[in-house]
Amino acid sequence: MNYKIDNLQYCNWSREIFQINREAKLDAVHVTIVYHEDYKELLKRIEEWNKHFTENSDLIFHGRNYKDIEKAREQNKTAIFFGFQNCSPIEDDINLIEKVHQLGCRFMQLTYNNQSLLATGCYEKIDSGVTNFGKEAIKEMNRIGIVIDMSHSAEKSTFDAIELSEKPIAITHANPLFWHKAIRNKSNDLLKALAESGGMLGLSLYPHHLKDGTNCNLESFCQMTAKTAEMIGVENIGIGSDLCLKQPDKIVEWMRNGTWTKTKNYGEGSKNKSGFPKQPEWFIDARGFKNLEEGLKKIGFNNTEVEGILGNNWYNFYKNI
Amino acid sequence: MNYKIDNLQYCNWSREIFQINREAKLDAVHVTIVYHEDYKELLKRIEEWNKHFTENSDLIFHGRNYKDIEKAREQNKTAIFFGFQNCSPIEDDINLIEKVHQLGCRFMQLTYNNQSLLATGCYEKIDSGVTNFGKEAIKEMNRIGIVIDMSHSAEKSTFDAIELSEKPIAITHANPLFWHKAIRNKSNDLLKALAESGGMLGLSLYPHHLKDGTNCNLESFCQMTAKTAEMIGVENIGIGSDLCLKQPDKIVEWMRNGTWTKTKNYGEGSKNKSGFPKQPEWFIDARGFKNLEEGLKKIGFNNTEVEGILGNNWYNFYKNI
Repeated sequence: MNYKIDNLQYCNWSREIFQINREAKLDAVHVTIVYHEDYKELLKRIEEWNKHFTENSDLIFHGRNYKDIEKAREQNKTAIFFGFQNCSPIEDDINLIEKVHQLGCRFMQLTYNNQSLLATGCYEKIDSGVTNFGKEAIKEMNRIGIVIDMSHSAEKSTFDAIELSEKPIAITHANPLFWHKAIRNKSNDLLKALAESGGMLGLSLYPHHLKDGTNCNLESFCQMTAKTAEMIGVENIGIGSDLCLKQPDKIVEWMRNGTWTKTKNYGEGSKNKSGFPKQPEWFIDARGFKNLEEGLKKIGFNNTEVEGILGNNWYNFYKNI
Repeated sequence: MNYKIDNLQYCNWSREIFQINREAKLDAVHVTIVYHEDYKELLKRIEEWNKHFTENSDLIFHGRNYKDIEKAREQNKTAIFFGFQNCSPIEDDINLIEKVHQLGCRFMQLTYNNQSLLATGCYEKIDSGVTNFGKEAIKEMNRIGIVIDMSHSAEKSTFDAIELSEKPIAITHANPLFWHKAIRNKSNDLLKALAESGGMLGLSLYPHHLKDGTNCNLESFCQMTAKTAEMIGVENIGIGSDLCLKQPDKIVEWMRNGTWTKTKNYGEGSKNKSGFPKQPEWFIDARGFKNLEEGLKKIGFNNTEVEGILGNNWYNFYKNI
């Protein structure tokens, strides 16, 4: 097998983008369908996705488990798996976890950048870890089969989630802190604990997570991948590109500000660079998987390892959800 | 002036209870109208209150500012002020703060027992203080005129709120920890900081907050009041009885468990004592204000001080909201 999986995209979805993902031979994409939406607003997002599935049934379909990745390969389509970047759709109700799973949710971040009812986000000053409700939610997510995603969470909360969860968790889109100091990137200790528990790290191609941002070069990215693999094991590494193709800048403003503040928050950006950053030229969209393949081989990974990073590792993880 | 104010009741409201509050000569009561309700559910609670106001217009009316306390005295009625024990009605939207104020909300706890989006509740293991959203919410509550109530909050969060708020805050219903060790009661340092910033402490008559619980005697309560007055100043002390008259036990179960857990949480109670505790015989309802008056005088407070504790201090606080 040599599945190709991008385990995080949040594009301004259109037939054109589904075609690009097909050109990139992606068998599966985990797509963010919610940032700040509550349960009722989630239902609207799902309606929009149902329209995409109907209008592009030759390119995509709704994925629900690992067998849909196999099916996608057979049918030359891309299986779309739903995920949330915040726990807002379950509101304050543990019973909604089962409901969002029925609707197709397979990954849920316990927090976006701020404190949630479940845990602390990476942009808070103090991290109190997984909350009382968070502990109950983790048990329920384990029972139901929704992966705990801690990409935007603070460090203690992430350690807590690794310890509390009976199933491996994921950091679907982030990079190691040793390579590029960003609030969203993760420490060596955390990545080791993640891998020791069987969890997955999806390496991000979002410029704010890359050394030298938009000017990051492929070799540097592949060197980082090699060093990370040495540290935590190559089988725990995949890709979660964080591609936000064709999104207007007002979207990143909404992602950062939601409805929680009246003053403007720039998150990873700044006043002068408040919009979406430009992708590096070797990864302007998922067709960059080809460049990654070459770069990873060049840096010394063998074929099995490269296939693992570009999809098989995520496939194996899905198999165990 | 000698206003009588009970600054926290959550009864199973009926004409009978409004009559009891009139017999007690209460000019104003701050009533909890929300524990876990979201914005839409809040609107239902307000509809229920509008029905109470219509059906009992000879006894109560909806209070909106301190002048309604004066009006209540003139008309021999009780002004009812709305408050929330959780920030759930503003959901994740800072713009709802202005809306709930328009609907009559005058007090809002930043947290109930658990972590909220704004701060940490007293039943969490770790207290990270006021969150990013919480800081914005405090600014907005200050601007709009909603009192920050930290009765059910954890200690660091309460210190944060005192420091961040430009207006005095309140602990509407709790007692000092020195008198009775309960998670909900407050430390000397916290009470001093509260009073130094002009904040108010509403002493609670809820048995779980009382030394010896249901068997607490009036003298002990009044001794505690005297010691507290000595420590933080008598002008910062009022009553927030936390009376839950005629509430069935399933209500306290809902208060504690909401929809955040599938396992049962007993809060201040225990498996064998899971229901509402019995009130001490000298304060079975608001008519106990008469006993408090006698007890406080007996312990050595002068008339002005007693009048302050039983209502005038809250009246002055309302004047500055």
